[in-house]
Amino acid sequence: MTLNDFSKYARQRVDAYLTQNLDQYKPADHLQEAMAYSLFNGGKRVRPMLTYAAASLFGEANSLTDACAAAIESIHAYSLIHDDLPAMDNDDLRRGKPTCHIQYDEATAILAGDALQTFAFELLSDTKHQNIKIQLQLIQELVVASGRHGMVTGQMIDLANVGKDIDINALEQMHQHKTGALIRASIRMGAISTGANNEAELAALDAYAIAIGLAFQVQDDIIDITSDTTTLGKTQFSDEDANKPTYPKLLGLEGAQLLAQRLHEQAITAISPFGDAAQPLVELANYIIGRNH
Amino acid sequence: MTLNDFSKYARQRVDAYLTQNLDQYKPADHLQEAMAYSLFNGGKRVRPMLTYAAASLFGEANSLTDACAAAIESIHAYSLIHDDLPAMDNDDLRRGKPTCHIQYDEATAILAGDALQTFAFELLSDTKHQNIKIQLQLIQELVVASGRHGMVTGQMIDLANVGKDIDINALEQMHQHKTGALIRASIRMGAISTGANNEAELAALDAYAIAIGLAFQVQDDIIDITSDTTTLGKTQFSDEDANKPTYPKLLGLEGAQLLAQRLHEQAITAISPFGDAAQPLVELANYIIGRNH
Repeated sequence: MTLNDFSKYARQRVDAYLTQNLDQYKPADHLQEAMAYSLFNGGKRVRPMLTYAAASLFGEANSLTDACAAAIESIHAYSLIHDDLPAMDNDDLRRGKPTCHIQYDEATAILAGDALQTFAFELLSDTKHQNIKIQLQLIQELVVASGRHGMVTGQMIDLANVGKDIDINALEQMHQHKTGALIRASIRMGAISTGANNEAELAALDAYAIAIGLAFQVQDDIIDITSDTTTLGKTQFSDEDANKPTYPKLLGLEGAQLLAQRLHEQAITAISPFGDAAQPLVELANYIIGRNH
Repeated sequence: MTLNDFSKYARQRVDAYLTQNLDQYKPADHLQEAMAYSLFNGGKRVRPMLTYAAASLFGEANSLTDACAAAIESIHAYSLIHDDLPAMDNDDLRRGKPTCHIQYDEATAILAGDALQTFAFELLSDTKHQNIKIQLQLIQELVVASGRHGMVTGQMIDLANVGKDIDINALEQMHQHKTGALIRASIRMGAISTGANNEAELAALDAYAIAIGLAFQVQDDIIDITSDTTTLGKTQFSDEDANKPTYPKLLGLEGAQLLAQRLHEQAITAISPFGDAAQPLVELANYIIGRNH
């Protein structure tokens, strides 16, 4: 399967699963609409691709794999809604469309984010999966990745760093919490959903995940200064405007590009023991470094 | 045990459990501090009292009962933080103290609320409980009570109703989602944590929960117009100021007081099959109707 085909496959599966499960309940208000607006806003579905690619190493993707991909996208969507709020990054535009609080209002955006977080745990705890041991394990993985041990702390560090001079280690620490933890969970949870339980194999996937998670951020910073606003779907130089620390600021553009390459190599090496089965993960690593938006 | 003793017992247990579990991780930022600020702000711990009282019908409170009480308080605390935000109810004062976004800032308050929601699922999914079947069931209960099927939708309805003329059924619908669902979960989860699995018994507890949940709101509305600001810890007539629908507005003060009494009787009748064992639940129902703050 080419990366393009794999991207379509992952998107179709996760979108169908999200739609099916979100439509089971239609409250008579804007909540569900705002949740769907942010879930289906043209995101690249990188995390579901990682989930399905990791699952494929151990077996056929099953309904729990779908639940993992959908749950992670729900957490990702909630975090973007809250990060875009005026009290945080104050962004009006996300992927070329009005952010949730612009399209609706701030109160609806806060609540849609809150409900998307709960929705993630709804998907993973659903009785239909009938695999309570693995379901509980997946919930534990998502908790650690998304809450005070992971993503939320990353956003706190990010906000605290605005306008400050921080070193490369502090920047890495921030990214590992803010985005790295959820990318790592995308991969681990996909693997666990199809029965992975070998410590060494999970450790190899972790090494891959940590490298591409960081590469993703380095590439984001590079794109922010090399791509134009139309390609980006958000304002160019938005990180620079916000006076946020970035890799090109700390390492120069060339230094940042070299770092992205080095992380790419680390990622490929980490999953080499899986052989040909890891081809989707290899292509995803290539895509993450090669993308320009 | 008198209600006063029971209140102390419930508070000590849930506070100790929350402190112990929150302290296991100390990120180098304000997040944990803001979470603790809102968790330990002098709340009445009504929900933990209900959890422990319901648990006592079926057995000794155990570590899962503690986790339920703590998880529900975390959800409750997160909902108060977000409800108090400028984009929602815009409250500066909660129980006589600055609200989270006043004490810290809006971004920290949004993130502390987000992390408290995740923390609730962290507590319930903790491997130490070693009872995966019941743990998953408890997570399902909390999901339904707190997300798009429950509390968050209630807050959406509440915001949509400001300044509108709604009837008594719409008001009840709002409260059953906004606060009733979590009160019902407090009782169901406490019972389930000590092994309750009899449908008829859980249905009796549901009937009690629905009645006292609504009674709690009716009493809140009554207190808002009969108690002064010092006793209340928030501004008197705050609901009236916000042009929100209330029971006294729809039924008159006397009508609202009669409704509270009727709901109280319904609650007591519902749990009469449990006999003397239900004494803590009876006293809690008495307290909810009798309280003046």
